[in-house]
Amino acid sequence: MNPRVFLEVDHLSPGERVKVGGEDGHHLVRVLRVGPLESVAIGAAGRGYLTQVESIDAKAGTVTLRVQNELSSHEAKLKVYLLQGMPKAEKTEFIIQHGTELGLNGFLLYQSNRAVARLDGKDAKKQTAKLVRWERVIREAAGQSQRDVVPTLAYAASWSELEKWLTGVAPGLILFLDEEEQALSLKAALTSYAEDALAEQFSQNASAVNASAEEESDGSVRPVVLCIGPEGGWDDNERQSFIQRLGAVPVTLGPRILRTETAGLVGAAAVFYHFHALGG
Amino acid sequence: MNPRVFLEVDHLSPGERVKVGGEDGHHLVRVLRVGPLESVAIGAAGRGYLTQVESIDAKAGTVTLRVQNELSSHEAKLKVYLLQGMPKAEKTEFIIQHGTELGLNGFLLYQSNRAVARLDGKDAKKQTAKLVRWERVIREAAGQSQRDVVPTLAYAASWSELEKWLTGVAPGLILFLDEEEQALSLKAALTSYAEDALAEQFSQNASAVNASAEEESDGSVRPVVLCIGPEGGWDDNERQSFIQRLGAVPVTLGPRILRTETAGLVGAAAVFYHFHALGG
Repeated sequence: MNPRVFLEVDHLSPGERVKVGGEDGHHLVRVLRVGPLESVAIGAAGRGYLTQVESIDAKAGTVTLRVQNELSSHEAKLKVYLLQGMPKAEKTEFIIQHGTELGLNGFLLYQSNRAVARLDGKDAKKQTAKLVRWERVIREAAGQSQRDVVPTLAYAASWSELEKWLTGVAPGLILFLDEEEQALSLKAALTSYAEDALAEQFSQNASAVNASAEEESDGSVRPVVLCIGPEGGWDDNERQSFIQRLGAVPVTLGPRILRTETAGLVGAAAVFYHFHALGG
Repeated sequence: MNPRVFLEVDHLSPGERVKVGGEDGHHLVRVLRVGPLESVAIGAAGRGYLTQVESIDAKAGTVTLRVQNELSSHEAKLKVYLLQGMPKAEKTEFIIQHGTELGLNGFLLYQSNRAVARLDGKDAKKQTAKLVRWERVIREAAGQSQRDVVPTLAYAASWSELEKWLTGVAPGLILFLDEEEQALSLKAALTSYAEDALAEQFSQNASAVNASAEEESDGSVRPVVLCIGPEGGWDDNERQSFIQRLGAVPVTLGPRILRTETAGLVGAAAVFYHFHALGG
């Protein structure tokens, strides 16, 4: 497998040269010790490219790559986000790392009422340091798992910040993982969502009728947000706010009790599986 | 949520008394500090029971429980096993802990060719100590996640030991997770397996025709074994042996590369989801 770095550039064309410096350059030169003509993959603007090492400046820690061709997409068509009640720090790392491998598009860490850990203390410097560290974890996991994009990481200290984040994501479905008996099964919620999205699409575009239902159902579905409580769970006010103010659908993953760090991964795996985004 | 302990007893009836000692008794008395009349759940012979604390002997570390009623099952009807190429020790713990929560029925750690860690060294004492430790991890996770059974843990140092383990499990489907391009999608493999199982059942029992296809498809399907390579993957000989000698079906989870400890969890989540074992 080729090493993969991410660049903040627009579309790349075959033959084009790109110079990689900074942390990525350092990583290629010093850690991976790439040599001339070696293959390196690039993720840029949501696409993957195969490149070849053209020259190396070991002193400066920079590598010049020559683009060979665009790679087939490694991204799921359906965008899935995780809204996670702030867990303990080591669990956060677990969640963002494995969630990135799985294919999540972004994470919101929410300072929910029963969260044990806090990120919104008085020490703004420490808070920033943690976020920077976690962003690096995500970037590394994205490279290792051969993602085309680096998932986003955001933090919401308040309900209004959470709402603002949601506005940016513009989800078509918010799933609220709940242990309550009256929750819908995840499968029922996803089946209904896929059918609604399909119906909406047919009504908008009659020419889509020729495409198969399965192809349609993972193509142009609006993002899904999966909400997972912290170790202590959500409190009743939060439950009410998610369901009544945001229209979140309470769903259950069954009678076995999953830890907060397992629930997000398992729930997201099921969403991707449903929409043919785990290998078709 | 009630604390849950596991007992090696047969069927329990309402009104029956059971005495819990040993590690479980210690845990209830000293760690959880249960009091009289408190509720405690029991897992026994694959079923869950609700009980009430009748008396406590703090000195001896024993608790006498009185069975109230049987609880609804927390187990998936489909049994899923993980055959895991021996990973590094801390990953093993991760895999068995989270796999237990998810609902796996058992684990086989296999000393595959490219495994970095070894359990079959000269020090038999150390090996036993590790397995005993991991069994405790599984038991604790089973209690916390409210399982009715404690998943099994086995170790195979050789191919013949692996085959022996498989004979005991008697799977109807062996999934071999593979990065090769020609692998089937997991969804295609599971859909075909569910259809075959359904057809077999109809031919065996005509009266099953009245039941819905979905109810049937998770009821009497033979166990599934999911095979995941170690950090370095399987080698070609192993790939050939799994596919040609065991009839394993090579499947892919898509273009994103999952770490060994993520792949088992995500793959198993998809299998459970497919067979309605993640909350319906």
